[in-house]
Amino acid sequence: MTNEARTEDRLKTGAASAEADSGASRCRRIVPVILAGGSGTRLWPMSREQFPKQLIGIVGRDSLLQATVSRMKGFSGDFEVAAEPIIVCGEEHRFTTEEQTRESGVDARIIVEPARRDTAPALTLAALAASKDGEDAIMVAMPADHSIADIPALHRAIAIAAEHAERGVIATLGIPPTRPDTGFGYIRLGAALEDGAHEIDRFVEKPAAELAAQYVAAGTYWWNSGIFVVRASVWLAALQKLNGEMHAACCAALGEGKDDGKFFRPAAAQFGRAPSDSIDYAVMEHIGTPSKPCDGVVVPLVAGWSDLGSWDAVWDAMDKDDSGNVASGRVVFEGATSSYARSEGGRLVACVGTTNIIVVETDDAVLVADRSRVQDIKGLVARIREQHAPEADTHRKVRRPWGFYDSIEHGERFQVKRIVVSPGSKLSLQMHHHRAEHWIVVCGTALVTRGEEQFLLSENESTFIPLGVRHRLENPGKVPLEIIEVQSGSYLGEDDIVRFDDTYGRCN
Amino acid sequence: MTNEARTEDRLKTGAASAEADSGASRCRRIVPVILAGGSGTRLWPMSREQFPKQLIGIVGRDSLLQATVSRMKGFSGDFEVAAEPIIVCGEEHRFTTEEQTRESGVDARIIVEPARRDTAPALTLAALAASKDGEDAIMVAMPADHSIADIPALHRAIAIAAEHAERGVIATLGIPPTRPDTGFGYIRLGAALEDGAHEIDRFVEKPAAELAAQYVAAGTYWWNSGIFVVRASVWLAALQKLNGEMHAACCAALGEGKDDGKFFRPAAAQFGRAPSDSIDYAVMEHIGTPSKPCDGVVVPLVAGWSDLGSWDAVWDAMDKDDSGNVASGRVVFEGATSSYARSEGGRLVACVGTTNIIVVETDDAVLVADRSRVQDIKGLVARIREQHAPEADTHRKVRRPWGFYDSIEHGERFQVKRIVVSPGSKLSLQMHHHRAEHWIVVCGTALVTRGEEQFLLSENESTFIPLGVRHRLENPGKVPLEIIEVQSGSYLGEDDIVRFDDTYGRCN
Repeated sequence: MTNEARTEDRLKTGAASAEADSGASRCRRIVPVILAGGSGTRLWPMSREQFPKQLIGIVGRDSLLQATVSRMKGFSGDFEVAAEPIIVCGEEHRFTTEEQTRESGVDARIIVEPARRDTAPALTLAALAASKDGEDAIMVAMPADHSIADIPALHRAIAIAAEHAERGVIATLGIPPTRPDTGFGYIRLGAALEDGAHEIDRFVEKPAAELAAQYVAAGTYWWNSGIFVVRASVWLAALQKLNGEMHAACCAALGEGKDDGKFFRPAAAQFGRAPSDSIDYAVMEHIGTPSKPCDGVVVPLVAGWSDLGSWDAVWDAMDKDDSGNVASGRVVFEGATSSYARSEGGRLVACVGTTNIIVVETDDAVLVADRSRVQDIKGLVARIREQHAPEADTHRKVRRPWGFYDSIEHGERFQVKRIVVSPGSKLSLQMHHHRAEHWIVVCGTALVTRGEEQFLLSENESTFIPLGVRHRLENPGKVPLEIIEVQSGSYLGEDDIVRFDDTYGRCN
Repeated sequence: MTNEARTEDRLKTGAASAEADSGASRCRRIVPVILAGGSGTRLWPMSREQFPKQLIGIVGRDSLLQATVSRMKGFSGDFEVAAEPIIVCGEEHRFTTEEQTRESGVDARIIVEPARRDTAPALTLAALAASKDGEDAIMVAMPADHSIADIPALHRAIAIAAEHAERGVIATLGIPPTRPDTGFGYIRLGAALEDGAHEIDRFVEKPAAELAAQYVAAGTYWWNSGIFVVRASVWLAALQKLNGEMHAACCAALGEGKDDGKFFRPAAAQFGRAPSDSIDYAVMEHIGTPSKPCDGVVVPLVAGWSDLGSWDAVWDAMDKDDSGNVASGRVVFEGATSSYARSEGGRLVACVGTTNIIVVETDDAVLVADRSRVQDIKGLVARIREQHAPEADTHRKVRRPWGFYDSIEHGERFQVKRIVVSPGSKLSLQMHHHRAEHWIVVCGTALVTRGEEQFLLSENESTFIPLGVRHRLENPGKVPLEIIEVQSGSYLGEDDIVRFDDTYGRCN
């Protein structure tokens, strides 16, 4: 049996058995589920459609995804934690998701959503996968783009939540509010339980400012953290009761899915039939109503949690200097207060006398925003997208399955790129109609195919690819290959490419 | 007689005759004198030690210097204006000053200050040069880094001032104040004259805020614009009376100076003996005191004048949109008010909800400043200079007599430069001990010397210069030559260069 076939089999079995086994002997095994399908622009210009927030190191060196996949490490509660988390991500981010997870030393099962359907279908796919062999594991579902400072505190909360999940309720972690934030959903607390948790009275949508203030003053509302702890079978049964169409679509999509070695791909046609909905709307808001599928419990989490939902939230989540400033990269403050400045593209960022200002510098865009107006960034990005500014959705540095390229300079008839190829990787065999290319190796060794020739280039050697000639760049070595490519020609668009062969299935 | 000898002769004659002819028959000839020795950092990061404010297009396409050298064009008063203005500039800015002046179609006499001594010695050098053949011209001395919107209004004011200058007084242009600015010197008005001018009662130093408010309320004070109209002989006599040491040093420096074809260079040793002082301190503040060397007159200038002394002043001098914003380059405002944003390095600059904020983006640095705190930029630059940040004084794009280079990317063992060589220009014959260079021609034609070979490279051709090999890059063509240079090696500092021959005298 091939590896692919085994995985497929494993997942299909899960899909089938979960439906059958709901309510079977309780399992004390936790499977982390990472919901990594986000693509927000609220942290533009760092987070973009093409490279969203969870893939970026917003609060540290590791990306938020990396922090999330490692978050259950060291969990010492009364449950066994599966070594392999399940990650659900979008098609366009699968390579980076896989690469970052691997870099973190985590072996994950990656489910690639064929289309965006919000979090409820994503969690359902994970639940089906987690129910392998009828095991009915307890899922700890976590958004990939939040930050949590105090991991032991998180583990303690999860241990409590898992005990509740084990007995068949949906547990969620709630954050005792510290301010009347209108950006979060709130949970109204029901009866207090012995372990510090509360029954969920009901979920409340994002309130207006006045209502939020009342909630906070009352002390009987917590923020909805988006972290859910629930047995796979309990989730699936709840969803089946509340939204049979979504449940059926996900079961069919998983059942007919394929594993291509690195990724499990649910069947697109079936998944496409699933309505788009969030976990909150599809299930949680029914708790506390007559249509409730099961009971709910909310466990308090006081662990430096942040959804990093805006640059203001990022500022809030970071350690500050005596003047309330946060610096990242080459930043100088002169008489600034309560400001956040980040140099990502390497330029020196100087803030003089600013108060409550956010500055984010990247290779191709600079954001300067008042901290009280960061919610308008979404509108800004929509506006520049309408103007077809590439900075709306793509970064100057473009990740590819083989590595990345960065367009460092361009003129009327030339373009300079820095290209980095991972060890053992190769670009497609290709040809351009309108441009010639000069390649200069500045680090590592290149295996170059040029027409009928094939030869090695070492550091400091160069070659020339005339237009119309088939060529391929490959890194046969053990260290990253870095080249400077100078393109020249009358048209230099990325679409002037004819691919003849590609390791990553991009020929058609 | 060579051209150099003629100029030398001309200037020396001027130096001698001015002393002798003071008070001789009146000359109705105007010589514009451009004081271009500034090197301020208040407009950092655009203005830097290496490339100061007057060389930059702050308010338009032309640099402030270019706007200044062309400012007397079209003057239709009762005076003849010399076609050749006199420019006094610093050693390190002479090539760019000459280039920009030439680009503006102006043939100027450029005097290079051997050292910085403030404006009084600079004007004295110009006065000596302007007194050629005992002509005793009327100097219109203008700082090179101000902006004036209404040129006809300026010409009318200068025509009035020149009439006063002709009869032997020092005339200055004064700006009727529009706000109690503490950044300017003020002039207290004396008796009103028929032509709208006033006698100068006295010069007042930059006042504190309260005093400035009183001055503005009184209506009897104008701002000192820094534009002076005075006969050469009158200036020289006044200076001789007030500061004989400075006068003598300047006379000696000019007398023993040399002309190298493009530049007149006063003798360094002699000029070094001149005390450093401004026109205001050295002469103008004595007007209205018992030690006054002559009378003074102030002529009102209402012509959209700005000294562009800070980014706030630049904002103030520019046309604004309905929300009071000023954009330059790729800028998007979203809910911003009264802000100034400038994209100079080509990145998209987005301002969200900012109020009274200055944003200036360049290739290597980004400034974000509150408009009320722009005076702190000077301190900021001093601080980053102490930290040896190159952004304090130098730009990424470095001007050279032959063109410029821009360091567009660098890694551990490589560096990529874009090099542009002006038609007919050449770099020095040179050699590097620690780096090899790849050159790719992306525009124009290069004449390459490599070891004993010499050959032409056309667009899209490339060559390789191994380390230790003598080489030279030259543009034999009629259009700018543009190459991409990839340097590789263990040490890539600018100081790894051995020059064998250089057109611009940089071999030693």
